[in-house]
Amino acid sequence: MSEAPFPNVAVIGLGLIGGSIGLAVQEYMPGARVTGWDADADVRCVAGERGLAHAVPEELADAVADADLIVLCVPVRAMESAAAALAGKIKPTCVISDVGSCKQSVAEAIARALPGQPVVPAHPVAGTEHSGPEAGFATLFQNRWCILTPGKDSDPQAVERVSAFWANIGATVDTMAPDHHDLVLAVTSHVPHLIAYTIVGTASDLEEVTRGEVIKYSAGGFRDFTRIASSDPTMWRDVFLSNKQAVLEILQRLSEDLSAMQRAIRRDDGDALFDHFTKTRAIRRSIIEEGQDDARPDFGRSDH
Amino acid sequence: MSEAPFPNVAVIGLGLIGGSIGLAVQEYMPGARVTGWDADADVRCVAGERGLAHAVPEELADAVADADLIVLCVPVRAMESAAAALAGKIKPTCVISDVGSCKQSVAEAIARALPGQPVVPAHPVAGTEHSGPEAGFATLFQNRWCILTPGKDSDPQAVERVSAFWANIGATVDTMAPDHHDLVLAVTSHVPHLIAYTIVGTASDLEEVTRGEVIKYSAGGFRDFTRIASSDPTMWRDVFLSNKQAVLEILQRLSEDLSAMQRAIRRDDGDALFDHFTKTRAIRRSIIEEGQDDARPDFGRSDH
Ligand SMILES: NC(=O)c1ccc[n+]([C@@H]2O[C@H](COP(=O)([O-])OP(=O)(O)OC[C@H]3O[C@@H](n4cnc5c(N)ncnc54)[C@H](OP(=O)(O)O)[C@@H]3O)[C@@H](O)[C@H]2O)c1
Ligand SMILES: NC(=O)c1ccc[n+]([C@@H]2O[C@H](COP(=O)([O-])OP(=O)(O)OC[C@H]3O[C@@H](n4cnc5c(N)ncnc54)[C@H](OP(=O)(O)O)[C@@H]3O)[C@@H](O)[C@H]2O)c1
Repeated sequence: MSEAPFPNVAVIGLGLIGGSIGLAVQEYMPGARVTGWDADADVRCVAGERGLAHAVPEELADAVADADLIVLCVPVRAMESAAAALAGKIKPTCVISDVGSCKQSVAEAIARALPGQPVVPAHPVAGTEHSGPEAGFATLFQNRWCILTPGKDSDPQAVERVSAFWANIGATVDTMAPDHHDLVLAVTSHVPHLIAYTIVGTASDLEEVTRGEVIKYSAGGFRDFTRIASSDPTMWRDVFLSNKQAVLEILQRLSEDLSAMQRAIRRDDGDALFDHFTKTRAIRRSIIEEGQDDARPDFGRSDH
Repeated sequence: MSEAPFPNVAVIGLGLIGGSIGLAVQEYMPGARVTGWDADADVRCVAGERGLAHAVPEELADAVADADLIVLCVPVRAMESAAAALAGKIKPTCVISDVGSCKQSVAEAIARALPGQPVVPAHPVAGTEHSGPEAGFATLFQNRWCILTPGKDSDPQAVERVSAFWANIGATVDTMAPDHHDLVLAVTSHVPHLIAYTIVGTASDLEEVTRGEVIKYSAGGFRDFTRIASSDPTMWRDVFLSNKQAVLEILQRLSEDLSAMQRAIRRDDGDALFDHFTKTRAIRRSIIEEGQDDARPDFGRSDH
């Protein structure tokens, strides 16, 4: 008998996150069977070749009919149609989960599309700048957090099983209210991405500095922003539109703090700058102690 | 006979950059002798133990008396006093160079402190977030750019030799006017650092999101900013005060672009966001093609 929390898992959307889930289930959950499906035939083809799931059928119905858990791994604004497409094709007891980077809007969208179905939204705080069916790998969730945002009427047993599912594939599970999730992630992920996209855009539009110069001398700090700003445009457009309120709120605070920095520089206030720069070091230390980053210089890029 | 462009090199300031130069000279320039000195006795002690130079005498005069090249590797606003301390202790033919991150103000400071001495300012575009005498390593400059900003009256032969010096320890040398250097680096290094320091500060001052949450969920993008924002506070205070005009100019452009992003989100203008996010991906590709970054996901952090 299998000990897997869900004997049959279906993954919808076989990009970075969906593909990684499929590989991780096969690697770490020997008792479970995972099927996969993607709206894009080319993606299904690559997914089959890479073995992202035990099976990647042509028809959505064949992928989901036996599923005890379906994980929606599509861009945030595609969640509603991906969920709606399941109607009539799935078991009434099948638990629906997702991996969307915003939780309030996604929970509402799934509930609209599949009224009465058990739903446990989730967000693994893990990823890379790459996307698509070639990008996934089985260890993506190891030592990363996965945040569940169950609704008030979520079935506690379903929550328990989804939690066990994520623990099995390597994540540490946390639970949060959806609106709080969206604010926390606006700070730790969404606004950093928006800033990176903005600064890379600013740098490439200057008249006085050529794009070639920006590229050549990027090792001074800029290149790290370009990594973040090379993330998938569809995914991020959806995130900003779906988490509008929290993103705008954090952006407003950031603008104020940036003005204070500008003022300190303009007034030659070296002490204010020094104090600020000293404070921010402590946060870095804690992140390394928590195991959320690599202490090697340059993330180990210099490999010396 | 030695083929080294300078038989005797002295490095003043034995932190990340100075220490790396000392190690690199010993590794890649067998014909040259390198001495080191630092104002801080503890730093001299560690430098001696780590062998950052062939010799690290107690007295500045002993470190510099025979030098044909002196490289000042102290914070930008300490350059003037570090140069002034050399007066009367060095050969009249000794070439003075430095590694400061801003070039206009540093060139002026050195000229004031050592009138008549040959000066060839330089800036290696290489570094990590670590500082101090434990941080340096011999390969830091491999495959990195080093920008020389000779003045109008710099001796062409001295420029040639400083250029050969950097090429010998692994860098590719480029030449630029000092004011243009300061603008280019404001874009590719100084403003990215200021933004990183700001956003890490904003995140740690929020009332609605705890610092523990920020740290826990930092893998969504924020942690990369914390790496940059853990760089040395003294170094960066000096950079912002010394490159004030260019930094404020680029910050102003960035603020305008950030307002445009805010507006696009507020108006649900998904197309504007998508187009912007698509454009910034191309820059990333060029940086990887130029060999200025690592194409592995997450800089290879996930090592799969
Ligand atoms: N990337 C990260 O770092 C990260 C981290 C945590 C959570 N997330 C979340 O995870 C989700 C997926 O992101 P990802 O990075 O894995 O994206 P991805 O690599 O682009 O994969 C998404 C896949 O879903 C497919 N798809 C789109 N609409 C669909 C539909 N209605 N039905 C079935 N398949 C559909 C896409 O096909 P086409 O491309 O052909 O449309 C694509 O193959 C997003 O909600 C994102 O917010 C991402
Ligand atoms: N870090 C980078 O990424 C990077 C990259 C390119 C260029 N640079 C430039 O390189 C220079 C050095 O930076 P770094 O990162 O190597 O800094 P660092 O690791 O902090 O080293 C600087 C050293 O200089 C010493 N020092 C300060 N004033 C001195 C003086 N008047 N005489 C002799 N020694 C003195 C400091 O001692 P105390 O700490 O005890 O004061 C410290 O040991 C700066 O101008 C910086 O702008 C840095």
